[in-house]
Amino acid sequence: MNRILKILRKVKNLNFEIKYKDGRGRVGILKTPHGTIKTPALMPVIHPGKQTIQVADYGAEVVITNAYLIYKNDELREKALQDGVHELINFPGPIITDSGSFQLSLYGDVEVSNQEIVEFQEKIGTDIGTSLDLPTPPSVKRERAEKELKITLQRAQEALEVRKELMLNSVVQGSTFPDLRSECAQALGEMDFQVHPIGAVVPLMESYRYHELVDVVMSSVSYLPDSRPRHLMGAGHPMLFSLAVAMGCDLFDSAAYILYAEADRLLMPNGTLKLENLYEMPCSCEVCTNYTPDELRGMEKEKRRDLLAIHNLRVSFAEIRMIHQAIIEGSLWELVEQRCRAHPFLLEALRNLKNYQDDLEKYDPPYKKSAFFYSGPESLNRPEVHRHLERVKRIPPKKSVLLIPRTTKPYSEHLHHIPLEFYRIKGEPNLENSAEDRQVTVVDVPFGVIPLELDQLYPLAQNESPRIHDEDSILMVKNILHDYIKDFEEVIVSEKVLRTFRLDEEFPTKDEYSEPLEIIVDDVERIKMIADYQFGSGSGEALFNTSVQIVKSRKTGKIRHVYDGDELIATLRASDGIFVLAREGARRLHRYLPYPKNRVVVNEDAEPFAREGKSIFAKFVINCDINIHAKEEVLIVNEEDQLLAFGKSILNGKEILDFNTGQAVKTRKGGL
Amino acid sequence: MNRILKILRKVKNLNFEIKYKDGRGRVGILKTPHGTIKTPALMPVIHPGKQTIQVADYGAEVVITNAYLIYKNDELREKALQDGVHELINFPGPIITDSGSFQLSLYGDVEVSNQEIVEFQEKIGTDIGTSLDLPTPPSVKRERAEKELKITLQRAQEALEVRKELMLNSVVQGSTFPDLRSECAQALGEMDFQVHPIGAVVPLMESYRYHELVDVVMSSVSYLPDSRPRHLMGAGHPMLFSLAVAMGCDLFDSAAYILYAEADRLLMPNGTLKLENLYEMPCSCEVCTNYTPDELRGMEKEKRRDLLAIHNLRVSFAEIRMIHQAIIEGSLWELVEQRCRAHPFLLEALRNLKNYQDDLEKYDPPYKKSAFFYSGPESLNRPEVHRHLERVKRIPPKKSVLLIPRTTKPYSEHLHHIPLEFYRIKGEPNLENSAEDRQVTVVDVPFGVIPLELDQLYPLAQNESPRIHDEDSILMVKNILHDYIKDFEEVIVSEKVLRTFRLDEEFPTKDEYSEPLEIIVDDVERIKMIADYQFGSGSGEALFNTSVQIVKSRKTGKIRHVYDGDELIATLRASDGIFVLAREGARRLHRYLPYPKNRVVVNEDAEPFAREGKSIFAKFVINCDINIHAKEEVLIVNEEDQLLAFGKSILNGKEILDFNTGQAVKTRKGGL
Ligand SMILES: [Mg+2]
Ligand SMILES: [Mg+2]
Ligand SMILES: [Zn+2]
Ligand SMILES: [Zn+2]
Repeated sequence: MNRILKILRKVKNLNFEIKYKDGRGRVGILKTPHGTIKTPALMPVIHPGKQTIQVADYGAEVVITNAYLIYKNDELREKALQDGVHELINFPGPIITDSGSFQLSLYGDVEVSNQEIVEFQEKIGTDIGTSLDLPTPPSVKRERAEKELKITLQRAQEALEVRKELMLNSVVQGSTFPDLRSECAQALGEMDFQVHPIGAVVPLMESYRYHELVDVVMSSVSYLPDSRPRHLMGAGHPMLFSLAVAMGCDLFDSAAYILYAEADRLLMPNGTLKLENLYEMPCSCEVCTNYTPDELRGMEKEKRRDLLAIHNLRVSFAEIRMIHQAIIEGSLWELVEQRCRAHPFLLEALRNLKNYQDDLEKYDPPYKKSAFFYSGPESLNRPEVHRHLERVKRIPPKKSVLLIPRTTKPYSEHLHHIPLEFYRIKGEPNLENSAEDRQVTVVDVPFGVIPLELDQLYPLAQNESPRIHDEDSILMVKNILHDYIKDFEEVIVSEKVLRTFRLDEEFPTKDEYSEPLEIIVDDVERIKMIADYQFGSGSGEALFNTSVQIVKSRKTGKIRHVYDGDELIATLRASDGIFVLAREGARRLHRYLPYPKNRVVVNEDAEPFAREGKSIFAKFVINCDINIHAKEEVLIVNEEDQLLAFGKSILNGKEILDFNTGQAVKTRKGGL
Repeated sequence: MNRILKILRKVKNLNFEIKYKDGRGRVGILKTPHGTIKTPALMPVIHPGKQTIQVADYGAEVVITNAYLIYKNDELREKALQDGVHELINFPGPIITDSGSFQLSLYGDVEVSNQEIVEFQEKIGTDIGTSLDLPTPPSVKRERAEKELKITLQRAQEALEVRKELMLNSVVQGSTFPDLRSECAQALGEMDFQVHPIGAVVPLMESYRYHELVDVVMSSVSYLPDSRPRHLMGAGHPMLFSLAVAMGCDLFDSAAYILYAEADRLLMPNGTLKLENLYEMPCSCEVCTNYTPDELRGMEKEKRRDLLAIHNLRVSFAEIRMIHQAIIEGSLWELVEQRCRAHPFLLEALRNLKNYQDDLEKYDPPYKKSAFFYSGPESLNRPEVHRHLERVKRIPPKKSVLLIPRTTKPYSEHLHHIPLEFYRIKGEPNLENSAEDRQVTVVDVPFGVIPLELDQLYPLAQNESPRIHDEDSILMVKNILHDYIKDFEEVIVSEKVLRTFRLDEEFPTKDEYSEPLEIIVDDVERIKMIADYQFGSGSGEALFNTSVQIVKSRKTGKIRHVYDGDELIATLRASDGIFVLAREGARRLHRYLPYPKNRVVVNEDAEPFAREGKSIFAKFVINCDINIHAKEEVLIVNEEDQLLAFGKSILNGKEILDFNTGQAVKTRKGGL
């Protein structure tokens, strides 16, 4: 992995910048000669010469058109060469052009060479051009996929040699072979392209093979540079957008808006409606609120087509706006899980994401503005759950554990709701453990085990799930418990937990536990555990091993600040219960955590700025902890690992290394 | 049950008619003095005197206003008494008025008597008035709920005595005690009311107690007459509409559109958005496409409120239209299952519907235009699954069964895709069963066991589910198989089925089955099994025991008609694979099925019309098979059980008996 990153860094990617992240999704900006594109973006396909809809009126900020169709038509070609493509299709903003690959895939042949079409695109002033790659369809023989991949890569190389200033797409191919997709992505990523379409996926989408689409996209994006936008070619149906964005796609093109309109079909975020079957109009757009299905059916074809196209654009752009909103507020997974109910094979695709849990976890920010909403067994595979189950292992086990059921959150404030029936399922009565020897842990779906000290942390406090559990939840929590209790000598469990998660199958004999149970959450324990969970085992000791002073909020009674004497170590952020470091905390953590853990390493040039507390731009970063997530507290150091400053990461470790543009860390304080 | 129905039938309910059904939902029309309301309908709440939005411009066909607020204000009262309420609030269509019960619930007291407010509503010309019931809040002591219920029922009776021509609401109360709700519903249903609100549920909705809302609604609707619309009082959030409709609610009122707008909140079908948190506008309405969040935030309060109210109305009415569409095309459950991902407690409410499976199954039409889409474990509880598992028992078992895995549908046309690895898990090798002794059955989610002969029937052929199963699906199919194979002497099972549904846990030892497996679906077997499944055990024999001639479609090769000589017995409908009777089929079925099975009994007056093949109106029906579903093939008979005609039911048995208006059966043929 590091090898790739180093090669990548020789190539300047200055056009794209990430502003917000959720899942693998990003809200970003892509600069082009004709303006800036806010991503994720939907690019309506403009048919040169045949266009009837002014897509800019309905929300288009960027469009895509076909350079090959222009090239082939004498009149269009001459006009494009003379006045430019922007004049030709009457769109002043960014224009992406396709090369004729689609025609190649349809007809097996095109009347232009790769070199010619790249040069032509540069001449007509397109913003981002495309080389003439070979779109290898899904499910071909491996031999063919390999052979065509070689040609695609040669043509990519050739396109780079031909182009002068033109920004270039280079399409990831490789059919339905994940390793070929990865190989292609990696090879193209090492070359100087600006955007990476993922190609030849239309046949998968047309036949509802979304499961395989996930494999193709994930095996591509995880080998593409994070610093370039990815375009899921031919994906124009809004029901797919959120899933594709959550997998890291940034650009969509829509010929669907007009093709579906031609066929009297309405795009909806939850599927497609045929006008012939409509009794009522389904949405709140100007078409759906001004016409009835009968009126539309009675219209002449062209007027109807244009109206349906307007509906299709309205719905598609509204979905894109909802996706931006979801990324920024951290509710992208919720949106994806809703949209994936549009078709059972989309749900299947969502379930297939389980196989990419590790990768997704690295990109997903651990702290979000929005609560975690459980929507079904698929939610068990979300990055947040995966991450929690890893991080909870960072907390040192005690002798005994008391497993209590869910109550209202935060749990520690609602302990009086717990039914008082307990059993000892492990350990002897004579152990005589004191309250300090005993970990109190809440058992709940989907996070499994929540040590009571962590009950105010995001997302452990900021999540909701049904109180009627599905079997996947029960089984998962049962398995989590099975592992969790191994570390304890004594296990006392609430009858409710025992029953809900069927522990009686594993522990058929049990002792009723009648001694009075005192549950106290110690403040020092709490802050140490939070620190361990947040920064790694031992961090709590490292930060708070001196005689600390804990200051609570007068209003909420919750811990706010931790001091050592007059020196602030860290502050617990009220919104998500995590520690925001102060100078002393950063120093202590820097002393404790071994290099490069939690570090972002800046070069000499950036050192003075960092010391001044200015934010860190990605281009100044020469190394960093690859395991950093976005929105984490990080230490900013120089090459000698001297602590310069500390702050909050905006990108994850891999992204910080890959980007040459935009902010990497929002510095909190310098002067260290 | 019959007792209720007979009492009900003394009361004329001539205002409401059902046009389409799905789940417990209905698209209907409700006639009022000021016009007809298409239900489900959303009624914006109009504040008399304070209204700023012309709700009719945004889709309102009926509104609700508060008669008590008018009554209390001298100026408003005088104007209303003089010009009528329609003039007062400037709305020409149907107006429903509330009585002040809400104020009573807020302040504990109102300055008007029940009698006065009912008389007042009649005087001001409201279309549907309301008595002054006592809204008992959730979770009160039972004693209080019982006491207040008594008063509510007294006031209902009093309102009936006071009113002259006024149509009247009567509100179902009973707090969160399902039996009290049912008692109240039944008592009110026996009186001459036109609409039944379900009251005092706002506190449940405000605190996300949707689980209990389901209990309240289901225990009310199942005791209310089907022939009257139900109004879920105070339910104005579009995320709730589809679930409420699927439970049998027809009317919603929305003060939410303006209250949320006042609070800078946007209603969405999947939740609520706060304007302060918005980066992009979420929908395709005129507000969301013409303004940015910043522009709205920068506006003066009143303009902003009105714009947000317009968005809220647009979104709410679009949801109502989608619900109409979903009911008509038979995709209401799909919509409900999508919307219930808006909040985990809505998902919990959906899961709670499992407890009302039997009731919901009776109302849900067995044949729909739309395919069954599996969206998660909740889909396993859908009426279609429940019904299939009952009906599949109607098929007589053979000696042996061969369990094969899912392939592409229809299964019998894709048998070559089945992997050829089988095991005998029950029975001895020396049984020597022939192919005729062997039932071939497909094992799949969610329908469990699908005898190959039924593979073209709705919804067995018209459904889709993910190929990655959740644990609930696996467990349910495992249990279905456990029961299913009991009836067979020999069980041979595909290795894939064995593994997927973990039969190896129950059958750890198994014989590899190496004999060649011949799978043939016999046409006569097929038609008999379909008939058994559709009409009940033995119906196949009764319909097709003579030497039948099977005519297939030249185009599709599928069975179309079954004749006895020249006489058509029945036709298999291509769209859903069910039998449509011909005269001879109706005669044979009538001879076989004991009275009143599958019958609709009409009175003397209707007999000549029925014989002429005219459709049967509910008011002429004097008895019927209570187990008839909507959209089933039914026999039309007179009191002597003479067969007059046959046709397709439009309502279910309970509805046919309850309604006095509208069609009950669409007659196919008379002259019998
Ligand atoms: Mg959320
Ligand atoms: Mg459907
Ligand atoms: Zn529309
Ligand atoms: Zn809107």
